[in-house]
Amino acid sequence: MNAEGLSINLATVREQWNLGEAVEACAKLGIKAIDPWRDQVTKFGLDNSAKVIRDHGMQVTGYCRGGMFTAVDAKGRAAAIGENKRAIDEAQTLGAECLVLVVGGVPQGSTDIIGARTQVAEGINAILDHARAAKMPLAIEPLHPMYAADRACVNTIKQALDIAVQLGSDVGVAIDTYHVWWDPELKEQIERAGREKRIFGHHICDWLVPTKDMLLDRGMMGDGIIDFKGFRSMIEAAGFHGPQEVEIFSAADWWKRPGEEVLKTCIERYNKLCK
Amino acid sequence: MNAEGLSINLATVREQWNLGEAVEACAKLGIKAIDPWRDQVTKFGLDNSAKVIRDHGMQVTGYCRGGMFTAVDAKGRAAAIGENKRAIDEAQTLGAECLVLVVGGVPQGSTDIIGARTQVAEGINAILDHARAAKMPLAIEPLHPMYAADRACVNTIKQALDIAVQLGSDVGVAIDTYHVWWDPELKEQIERAGREKRIFGHHICDWLVPTKDMLLDRGMMGDGIIDFKGFRSMIEAAGFHGPQEVEIFSAADWWKRPGEEVLKTCIERYNKLCK
Repeated sequence: MNAEGLSINLATVREQWNLGEAVEACAKLGIKAIDPWRDQVTKFGLDNSAKVIRDHGMQVTGYCRGGMFTAVDAKGRAAAIGENKRAIDEAQTLGAECLVLVVGGVPQGSTDIIGARTQVAEGINAILDHARAAKMPLAIEPLHPMYAADRACVNTIKQALDIAVQLGSDVGVAIDTYHVWWDPELKEQIERAGREKRIFGHHICDWLVPTKDMLLDRGMMGDGIIDFKGFRSMIEAAGFHGPQEVEIFSAADWWKRPGEEVLKTCIERYNKLCK
Repeated sequence: MNAEGLSINLATVREQWNLGEAVEACAKLGIKAIDPWRDQVTKFGLDNSAKVIRDHGMQVTGYCRGGMFTAVDAKGRAAAIGENKRAIDEAQTLGAECLVLVVGGVPQGSTDIIGARTQVAEGINAILDHARAAKMPLAIEPLHPMYAADRACVNTIKQALDIAVQLGSDVGVAIDTYHVWWDPELKEQIERAGREKRIFGHHICDWLVPTKDMLLDRGMMGDGIIDFKGFRSMIEAAGFHGPQEVEIFSAADWWKRPGEEVLKTCIERYNKLCK
C-alpha cells in the first residue's frame, strides 16, 4: 500500500494510541506525515513527542490547535492570546508546518456574531508577531456553520481569506472537506486562496447521511457524499500539492476499531478515492 | 398579551394538537396567522382545514411544504413535480400567501451537489406555470448547511435569490433565522432580497448551545444565540412587514409541554425580543 501524499491527523486514532504509538504505527505502514493535537502532545510530553516525530522522519502537516479567541471579557481574550503563543512555541518545537486555528464561537450570553468575528481578527493580529518570529504560519480553519455558535464564527473559506488578507503575510487557511463541501462559492474561493498562496493545509473527512452526532460522527472517505477527487483537483489547480490529512472524529465507529485497521482503511480509501 | 404581527407555524404544536385544535387555540389567544404543514392538512382533511382557517379569519403566512426536487432518476424528479403541483393546489384552497419550498439534498448514492442544484432550478421551473396560474408565490427556504446533504442543497439567501432571479417573477425566499443567522453575507443578501421584492416570509426560531439533535432541537426565541431584534430590523429595512412566523421543532422540550404554554411563551418572547 502506497501512503505517499497522505497525512494522518492523530485525532483519527486518539482513542487507540498515545502519540508515540500512533507515530510508530503510521511509520510502519509507510505513512510519512502526521498532525498531532495539543492534548496528545501534553500527555506524551513535548520533548518526547518532538523526538519520536524526528526519529521517524515524520513531516508534521499542522498542529491542532490554536484559536478560541472569543470571550465575554478582555481577561478571557488575553488568556487566549497567551495560550496561542504557547501553542506556537510547541508547534515550532515539533517542526509543524502551520498552527491550525479554530477561531472560537459566539461568547456565552452574547448574541453578537459580528462582534465575535472582530475579536477573532484582533486575536490573530495579537499573536502574529510571535508567530512570525517563530516562522510558524497560522492556518485559519473555517468550520462548518453548525459550529458557528460554539466553536468557530468563521465558516467559509472566503471569510478566512478576508481575515488573512487584512492581516498580511503568514496567515492562510486549512481547508477541510467536511467543513466546506457544501459552500456554493467553493471553487472560486479555493482558486482565490491559491492565487494568494494561502492554502496551508488540506484535510479530508466525509459527511455521513445521516449524521448522528454534530461533533463525533464524521465519516471515512467514501462512506458519505463528498467528491474527494473533484475536491482535490480544485486544490491542486490552485497550486497546493501538500499531503491530504485525514481527520476523522468518530466516537461510535472508527475510534472503536483497531488502530491498524483504521490506518489501513485510510490508505486504501485515499488511494482509491482521493487522488 | 398582544399577538399582532405573530404567526404560528403549526409544526410548533404538532405533537399537542390536530390542525383544527391548533387553529382554535391560536384564535383564543389572539394569534391571527398560521402556517400549516401538509401532513397536518391531510390528517384533518383539506376542506375541513380550509373551513376552520376561514371561520377563524386566520391569515395563512405560508404552506409547508413543497420542494424535494432532487432524485436519482428522471422518474423520481417527475414524481416530485406532480407532488409540488398538488401542494400548490392545496395552498390555494387554504388561502396561503406562499408555498414554502425545501428544495432537496444530494440524491442518494451521488456526490454531485452542483448537479443537485441544477435539478432544483429545473424542478421549480417545471412547476412555475402551475403556480402562476394558481397565483401562488413560491418561497425557496434556504436551510442551514447541516442539511445540505439530505434536505436542501440551497443553503444561503444568495443562492435562493440567484435561482429566483434566474426564474423570474413569483419566486422568492422564506428567511428563517435558524437557518441563516450565521451567514457572513446576511445583511447584504437581506437588502438584496428586499430590493427585488422577493421576501415572502420571515420565520423565527433560536439556535441552542448545545444543539443536541440536528433536526428536532430547535429553540424558543431567547433561549439561544440569535439577535432577533437586529434580524427583524434588517428584514423591515428591506421592506418586509409581514408576520414573524414561529417554527420550532423540539422533540424533547416544547413538543412535550402543553400547547397553550407553548403559544403563550411564543407571544411573550415575541413581544419581548423580536420587535
